[in-house]
Amino acid sequence: MQNMELKAETIRVVGPCDTWAFPLKMKERHPLEYVRQFPHLRCRNNTLSSLLRVRSEATAAIHSFFKESGYVHIHTPIITSNDCEGAGELFQIETLNEAKEPAEKNHFFDVPAFLTVSGQLHLEVMAGAFTHVFTFGPTFRAENSQSRRHLAEFYMVEAELSFTESLQDIMQVMEDLFKTATSTVLSKCPHDVELFHKYIAPAQKGRLEQMLKKRFVTITYSEAVEILKQASQAFTFKPEWGCDLQTEHEKYLVKHCGEVPLFVINYPYDLKPFYMRDNEDGPQHTVAAVDLLVPGIGELCGGSLREERLPFIESRLQRLGLADAYQWYLDLRKFGSVPHGGFGMGFERYLQYILGVDNIKDVIPFPRFSHSCLL
Amino acid sequence: MQNMELKAETIRVVGPCDTWAFPLKMKERHPLEYVRQFPHLRCRNNTLSSLLRVRSEATAAIHSFFKESGYVHIHTPIITSNDCEGAGELFQIETLNEAKEPAEKNHFFDVPAFLTVSGQLHLEVMAGAFTHVFTFGPTFRAENSQSRRHLAEFYMVEAELSFTESLQDIMQVMEDLFKTATSTVLSKCPHDVELFHKYIAPAQKGRLEQMLKKRFVTITYSEAVEILKQASQAFTFKPEWGCDLQTEHEKYLVKHCGEVPLFVINYPYDLKPFYMRDNEDGPQHTVAAVDLLVPGIGELCGGSLREERLPFIESRLQRLGLADAYQWYLDLRKFGSVPHGGFGMGFERYLQYILGVDNIKDVIPFPRFSHSCLL
Repeated sequence: MQNMELKAETIRVVGPCDTWAFPLKMKERHPLEYVRQFPHLRCRNNTLSSLLRVRSEATAAIHSFFKESGYVHIHTPIITSNDCEGAGELFQIETLNEAKEPAEKNHFFDVPAFLTVSGQLHLEVMAGAFTHVFTFGPTFRAENSQSRRHLAEFYMVEAELSFTESLQDIMQVMEDLFKTATSTVLSKCPHDVELFHKYIAPAQKGRLEQMLKKRFVTITYSEAVEILKQASQAFTFKPEWGCDLQTEHEKYLVKHCGEVPLFVINYPYDLKPFYMRDNEDGPQHTVAAVDLLVPGIGELCGGSLREERLPFIESRLQRLGLADAYQWYLDLRKFGSVPHGGFGMGFERYLQYILGVDNIKDVIPFPRFSHSCLL
Repeated sequence: MQNMELKAETIRVVGPCDTWAFPLKMKERHPLEYVRQFPHLRCRNNTLSSLLRVRSEATAAIHSFFKESGYVHIHTPIITSNDCEGAGELFQIETLNEAKEPAEKNHFFDVPAFLTVSGQLHLEVMAGAFTHVFTFGPTFRAENSQSRRHLAEFYMVEAELSFTESLQDIMQVMEDLFKTATSTVLSKCPHDVELFHKYIAPAQKGRLEQMLKKRFVTITYSEAVEILKQASQAFTFKPEWGCDLQTEHEKYLVKHCGEVPLFVINYPYDLKPFYMRDNEDGPQHTVAAVDLLVPGIGELCGGSLREERLPFIESRLQRLGLADAYQWYLDLRKFGSVPHGGFGMGFERYLQYILGVDNIKDVIPFPRFSHSCLL
């Protein structure tokens, strides 16, 4: 394989290594499950070092994409006192002493504090000052899941655009981000990507280049439900307008549309969070939301126009009993509100997709999931 | 001030704003303490929006600096099971249910888990696979301090270099990073920087440009103690070989050396953490450590050569009773160890220094400190 030979005149051993005791063997292609047992050594394995170079290059490509498009980078907070979204899956933070003797009223921050699940609401704050903002940082979910698609600590790329009245504008940024980052990775790390497409996911070879040339496909949620209803395939969950799309549905839709990335837009109002913009299109009442589904993974990105109209968002928060907790969010609409929207992309799922890696634990340097926090 | 006038033919109010109720007034220069009360609105204030543009530009400049120098970017973990360093100041993580009814044996991760205080040890793992690595992410300290230099959540830039046998190599990277990032900010955000040097820190004007032209000064810890002992100034803490340098000492040293960034190297062995490399220099026994002190701030960066020799690090960890907990760290020395070293720079302190901002709470979008976690 090498196109060079070295002729050494002297050899200096900098640090010896007992190759019998060392768990990774030269010239052996260890399964990813095997190397995962050695979090402190697995980066010395070919596959993992290629992965980490691709991850580094993709990180840089994402930062460049936004910088060159005029976005201001924001470090949204990791610790937050927002606890109203998906409360069951939050990690709470205590100081060591508090954790030993919990005293309800004696928190370090005076209030209960949690690890962030998304930087979106904080980015919306910033969208009131800058036209385009983005963040790229860790987010957390205390999901008790052993799924190959979930981690307790994972990275999200999130962007928010002001003066945007059309979901298409958001989708265009999602598609451009995806294609620009992927082209950069393909051109900067050809050997690292090839290793994956040769040994890990042979079916992936050439597909990415093909995909980069095509426009992503868009269908509405209502069209998606019709497609599913007319499918000859039997689903475990019966497709029905008003119900969430299940993994089996997502897979079918992506296949039906030609195994390309697929935008599904305009979801039922009652399925989506309070901040999504009402389409006012009754009787099948929807919000301006979008999910990007990709082959083999399912949901890669989610986005929406945000409800910028004070009366709409106020009454929705009141119905949810959240108007007091979100007074600050209402203030953003009260003082010089503008139409805006944004999206988030799961960075590990993105890496899984472009490299064809089955398990999300193999695309992050130190995976954290239920029952495991090594090092 | 403006060099343009607009002649509007029609005006469309996108989102009205009640200027009487809005807490930030046009044409009024609010004190930073005042705008800090409105974390959701303060980015619409001139000073804070300039700060956030500079922060974004500095972030990009730091990423570029490392990328162009061939470093691999690593996302070191936020949640860690390492709890041996500075245990008192750690934040512990529980799921919501655990936090309500703590059950010692029933952690989400099976083991106690904490927010990271530094990515260094995880970067050292990566330095076994890549010659140069860096990370730039959030770190946490549960310090019950209201200081103008401390936050509970702050950002650190950390780098690790393999095949490095001299502290000078590390110091060169620190100096290059500092100067490259600062030049970039000065050239990309001249108006934003000017706002600070005009209204916030007039004394800073022109100083940065001067500083960029000079080499940073280096003295040893022992020389520093001698300088302090010969000082005419009376210190609250008497300078003594073997004791930590206090803020008053750091200030004097920086002044003594001409108000430029100052490296202090070779600290007493007993003052520094277990991983720093023994200089084996007898009776005044030191390690290859370095701190970078800057005018007005004090310590901006800290670094060291790491102890790569297995017997040295093994016996030190044994004396500390940590050999079992750090078996994985010993493994890094057991299997192909190489001389290496690295450093960390506090990103908020860096911004404080270049912009002349007195309080660290004013250089981060959403400050977290004891008794405060707004939004």
